[in-house]
This record gives sequence, structure tokens and C-alpha cells, in this order.
Amino acid sequence: MSKYEVAEPHVLGPEVVVPCCPPIAAGELSVPDAKRMAVMFKALSDPVRLRLFSKVASHPAGEACVCDIMDVGVSQPTVSHHLKKLREAGLLTSERRGTWVYYRVAPSVVAAMSAMLDLRPAAAGS
Amino acid sequence: MSKYEVAEPHVLGPEVVVPCCPPIAAGELSVPDAKRMAVMFKALSDPVRLRLFSKVASHPAGEACVCDIMDVGVSQPTVSHHLKKLREAGLLTSERRGTWVYYRVAPSVVAAMSAMLDLRPAAAGS
Repeated sequence: MSKYEVAEPHVLGPEVVVPCCPPIAAGELSVPDAKRMAVMFKALSDPVRLRLFSKVASHPAGEACVCDIMDVGVSQPTVSHHLKKLREAGLLTSERRGTWVYYRVAPSVVAAMSAMLDLRPAAAGS
Repeated sequence: MSKYEVAEPHVLGPEVVVPCCPPIAAGELSVPDAKRMAVMFKALSDPVRLRLFSKVASHPAGEACVCDIMDVGVSQPTVSHHLKKLREAGLLTSERRGTWVYYRVAPSVVAAMSAMLDLRPAAAGS
């Protein structure tokens, strides 16, 4: 698996990994790659989603119950909606245990997003 | 200047640099940091904007005239609108020379976005 493989949102679900995407400075993005990347960046384009994402990413246990992270000033259904968007974009994975759903960051997807923003020309072939 | 300093969109303009933002896994994001970061990620949440951004970032001269990059399947006013959004978010800088406006990537801003997605816990204090 190359370092540019991340989850394909919507089509395959967050657990299935397909090739995506080259560093943004490596050349002109293809239309399909641009569409895939836009979905991931869109997931982080909302301040409440970013705060929820950071709460999961920084949680000591490496995962967070929705009950741990819902103090972001919006209703529980809104929290659930935002967590669903993050999951659909492949940035979080989730698992139901008993009453609650537990969330984890998908580290390979987030690392791939970080690599996409690598501006060094050599990164394209490394 | 720390590595977390990037342009503050809207308030100060793309050339002025203010502190922003810690890695997303370093702890819970503050509301102001989440708002700043959301503006930057929102700028990359559109496929056409991503393609324009990659055309500028990968252009051999390190900068691109709007005349070089407008073949993305939308009208010139729409191209100008998208480039304005990228500039307002601090991701591109621009300079008018003669008839055309030339765009460059703001490397420190893009590097800061990449660093925000660094999931290593140690990154917070490094």
C-alpha cells in the first residue's frame, strides 16, 4: 500500500482503502482525485467538527465515547451528525459497545491528508 | 515565529502572520483556533479550488498567471472567485503585473496546515 492510499468516502465506506492522492504540488490534480480530497477537507471545514475531531484525536485512551466529547455547545443530534460526516469522510472509525458508540481517528487517512499538503517537489517520487 | 503561525484570514489579510494553530491531536482545540483552521480547510473543500491550487503549486515558475490555469471547466469569473477564496484563506498570494494577476502558494501556511494534521503526541512540544 502506498502512502497515498486512504479511505474512499461514501462509495466503499471508511474501512476500505483505495489509492488517493498525490501531494498537491506534485502536478495538476486529476478531477477524481480533487473530488476525493475535497470530501476529506470538507469534513474538517466546520469549527465544531474540528473540535470534535481534536477531542477524539487527543483523548488519552486513543478512543472516545460520544459521551466524552459532546460538550461542544451543540445538541446531541448535531454532535452525532458531525461525527457521521467525519466517519463518512474516512477520518474517524466507530464501534458500538453497549449503549455508546466509540470513535477513533483513522491515522493513515489523516497522515495521507498531511502528505497531500507536502509542497516539496521531491515528495512526488519519494 | 513558531511553526504554528500562519496567516489570519479576513482580519489581517493574507500577508500578515499571527499564531495558529497547534496539531489537532495535541489537545482539545480552542474555539478561536477551530474557527481559524476551519476557514483554511474550507478553502480546500471544493474540487475546482483544489485543482486551481494544485496548478499554482506545481507550476514550473513557482507562480502562475491566471491565464495559465483557467482551463478547469468553469467560467473566468468563477475561476477568479475561487482564487479569491484561496487568497482570503491565506493559501495563495497574488500580485498584479500588467494585464494579469500572478499567484503563488504561501508555503508557510500550507506547511502549517500539514503540521496541524500531525497526529504524533510529541509534536505539541517539539
